[in-house]
Amino acid sequence: MFRLDELVARLGGELSGDAAITVRRVATLDQAGDGDLAFVANRKYLSRLQGSAASAVIVAPDVRPLVEGRPCIVTGDPYLYFARVAQLFHPAPVARPGIHPLAAVVSRVPASVEIGPGASIDEDVVIGEDVIVGAGCHIGRGVRIGRGTRLAPRVTIQHGCIVGEDCIIHSGAVIGADGFGFAREKGGGWVKIPQVGRVVIGNDVEIGANTTIDRGALDDTVIGDGCKLDNLIQIAHNVRIGERTAIAGCVGVAGSTTIGARCMIGGQAGIIGHLSICDDVVVSAGTLVSKSITRPGVYTASLPVQPHAEWIRNFAHLRHLDALVGRVRSLENQQVGPDDRNPG
Amino acid sequence: MFRLDELVARLGGELSGDAAITVRRVATLDQAGDGDLAFVANRKYLSRLQGSAASAVIVAPDVRPLVEGRPCIVTGDPYLYFARVAQLFHPAPVARPGIHPLAAVVSRVPASVEIGPGASIDEDVVIGEDVIVGAGCHIGRGVRIGRGTRLAPRVTIQHGCIVGEDCIIHSGAVIGADGFGFAREKGGGWVKIPQVGRVVIGNDVEIGANTTIDRGALDDTVIGDGCKLDNLIQIAHNVRIGERTAIAGCVGVAGSTTIGARCMIGGQAGIIGHLSICDDVVVSAGTLVSKSITRPGVYTASLPVQPHAEWIRNFAHLRHLDALVGRVRSLENQQVGPDDRNPG
Amino acid sequence: MFRLDELVARLGGELSGDAAITVRRVATLDQAGDGDLAFVANRKYLSRLQGSAASAVIVAPDVRPLVEGRPCIVTGDPYLYFARVAQLFHPAPVARPGIHPLAAVVSRVPASVEIGPGASIDEDVVIGEDVIVGAGCHIGRGVRIGRGTRLAPRVTIQHGCIVGEDCIIHSGAVIGADGFGFAREKGGGWVKIPQVGRVVIGNDVEIGANTTIDRGALDDTVIGDGCKLDNLIQIAHNVRIGERTAIAGCVGVAGSTTIGARCMIGGQAGIIGHLSICDDVVVSAGTLVSKSITRPGVYTASLPVQPHAEWIRNFAHLRHLDALVGRVRSLENQQVGPDDRNPG
Repeated sequence: MFRLDELVARLGGELSGDAAITVRRVATLDQAGDGDLAFVANRKYLSRLQGSAASAVIVAPDVRPLVEGRPCIVTGDPYLYFARVAQLFHPAPVARPGIHPLAAVVSRVPASVEIGPGASIDEDVVIGEDVIVGAGCHIGRGVRIGRGTRLAPRVTIQHGCIVGEDCIIHSGAVIGADGFGFAREKGGGWVKIPQVGRVVIGNDVEIGANTTIDRGALDDTVIGDGCKLDNLIQIAHNVRIGERTAIAGCVGVAGSTTIGARCMIGGQAGIIGHLSICDDVVVSAGTLVSKSITRPGVYTASLPVQPHAEWIRNFAHLRHLDALVGRVRSLENQQVGPDDRNPG
Repeated sequence: MFRLDELVARLGGELSGDAAITVRRVATLDQAGDGDLAFVANRKYLSRLQGSAASAVIVAPDVRPLVEGRPCIVTGDPYLYFARVAQLFHPAPVARPGIHPLAAVVSRVPASVEIGPGASIDEDVVIGEDVIVGAGCHIGRGVRIGRGTRLAPRVTIQHGCIVGEDCIIHSGAVIGADGFGFAREKGGGWVKIPQVGRVVIGNDVEIGANTTIDRGALDDTVIGDGCKLDNLIQIAHNVRIGERTAIAGCVGVAGSTTIGARCMIGGQAGIIGHLSICDDVVVSAGTLVSKSITRPGVYTASLPVQPHAEWIRNFAHLRHLDALVGRVRSLENQQVGPDDRNPG
Repeated sequence: MFRLDELVARLGGELSGDAAITVRRVATLDQAGDGDLAFVANRKYLSRLQGSAASAVIVAPDVRPLVEGRPCIVTGDPYLYFARVAQLFHPAPVARPGIHPLAAVVSRVPASVEIGPGASIDEDVVIGEDVIVGAGCHIGRGVRIGRGTRLAPRVTIQHGCIVGEDCIIHSGAVIGADGFGFAREKGGGWVKIPQVGRVVIGNDVEIGANTTIDRGALDDTVIGDGCKLDNLIQIAHNVRIGERTAIAGCVGVAGSTTIGARCMIGGQAGIIGHLSICDDVVVSAGTLVSKSITRPGVYTASLPVQPHAEWIRNFAHLRHLDALVGRVRSLENQQVGPDDRNPG
């Protein structure tokens, strides 16, 4: 429970209306009831403001005149402000120090660390203060984990990998499995190339459920500070990702590709191997990136969804696009004189 | 082992031929031997009927005249009938009551429940009768699981989530990890938005191996009764899926999207965030849905696969499609008079 | 540490330069320092050779004249040679025999087997010599695992499945979960078809992290000898994959499809169900294969990535491709006489 003036004292913003109002949780405009603090992050939700039962709202300056008497906190970025308020209401979980008797721990860990049932920690592991290792996690030999990092249940971090401070790794994530590296013999047999690099993860990184980040072949796979990775992402060996890049679910990044800082990669996008993506690139959902990108901007390659019959009618022609272009060129050649014809 | 007349007594259908024949298992037409019951679900497999060694077959009325003397069960939907027979031959596994000594259980559970080795169950968990919690599962604080639900080994269900009755959740599934929610600061840093909603799963839901369903940000993520989700699916926070919708493997559904009842989503399809898909929609495999769908039907967006050289020849033109359309328009303008020209 | 002449004695190749040079590890040209053995697998990296500090290099005969005095090993396939050298420097992990006290093992296993903490092994399991079962793995009833196979931590192999010899299965992989098989009732309800087949995996197979391979419905799902599967791949029920086929990350293969031997399937490719792909097919990254392939070769279907504004401009026309073709045909009809017109 916070008073609005307490929130403003902690987080900034300008208060309008009754400063003594207390709010007990954050909520969406639709769900908010008495005692709730809602927010208007986007003018397109303004229509919901009128009908909302929220006791107070977080709004941008241009929305303030439309609030009509409801207490509000005015701030340049209501969504960011909401995030900070939500963190006050829901602080991150704190380690409950101790090693569960059903955990198998053969490295020394600080007394402040929580290790859940069924977890196993191999030799030569170095874990920082206040780390949480959830139930059923496995931490391989020689791993280092920085202070304040939280592993949800059933995370795997394999030998030699490094995880920074204040990271969150969700259930089922696998950090440091072997990269997919084989040399092909005559006859098609595959000879495994030992994967002897590591995964090196910076500080303040979040990694989603069942995401996999492979260890490097010879060098390391590197995830920069502040990166956020969603669920079911595949990061192949020797990929390097710059700071604060965010990657949505189901993305695959193939081996040895470099992604810059502050990029945003949409869901189900794919990036093939050995490419270089510069800083500040946005890749749209479902887009396959098949060559390097050297300029910031938004890049897209996806198809418009159509009713099935229309799709058949239109897309059958894709197999004959070259012929179609030839036919247009041929028409142009018949049409125009040799001096001004379009070269096609 | 069942006699054909026993099957018909239990499951309906019309018996043709020797009612006393016993069958000991179900099999495909190709694999069936003596003592096996096969089925013809599709007239295109009729040719295999002749050569099959099956002792009896399940057929539709229009196929019956073609069976020629083999005992058969005639029913309107042989595939559905086959499913029910197969359930008789292979009843679902039943809980072997008890808590394994290597499980860590700190909530009270009914005596009928089976809890495997390495499983951990946090505080305030409520589990119904006859539930199976496989080896290495983790059930977070405050979770509720309805009667008869089976968790395969290594499932994670995080705090506060609700799972209905008679559900099956396969290995590696992660229910209730944090949704991917961040507010962006100036400079590109990401501020985590605490994810305080739940996942609420109805009755008779099946969830595939390594599928992830994220908890809601403020409200809940909801999976309706009778939904069937395949493996490696990502369901983002605040998604709502209606009853009896089936989703094939590798699909991604982005945040806050609503999918109606009885939809069928093909493998590797993607649905971007904040959309609404109405009831009875079929999305083809590999299709990215980038806008809401308001009418039932089949929707598709995918490319015809081509030999690589043809693909290069045809698809190079996609970058210049707008120019091509301009060239056609220009030809049309030269061709026709101003009064009847095609506006393009 | 190996002398170059030791390497050549074991692995073949021709030595050029000081045979007594010792190398202590393998490295890339860029990273190599004194005491390192690098390789030139591709002439496009030749420029890096000059600046490399490697003590020796593995090169192809045509590159040898360019090496200029540095000791080298000359071989027809430097990348393959590098793989074999790397295996000498980094031999595969060897089982540390014994069953961890926190493992739950109810089958008899050979004394040479290593079973990690938190692992559980059901009844009637048969495990070969020197197998490693990592921490937190679950092996279901009746599973057979061949000698020398290594399961990383947190692998699940469900009842009745067969894994050959010398396989590597990475963390989070789920072998033998139920296939996605349901019959639909009137009204849209789904009736589960018991999945009673197995997964049968050959020898020398590698399966990536969080990959899922479903058990067959009636028959088996089969992965041939020498196959290599990367991370986050979905193999549906009754799929059959021939020998030495390699599949990159995030691929989905739908039910009952057959893939031949020595195929290479690129990342995020998809193959729909009930198809047949012949031997020696290469499918490019991101390609959806929607019909059978009967001839070896490279097959592709993907879009060129474009800056977002260009993509909108070009791809809006895809919805009207059929109309465009009609317009071209109409122009052609106006242009040419009836005897020589292009039928389109």
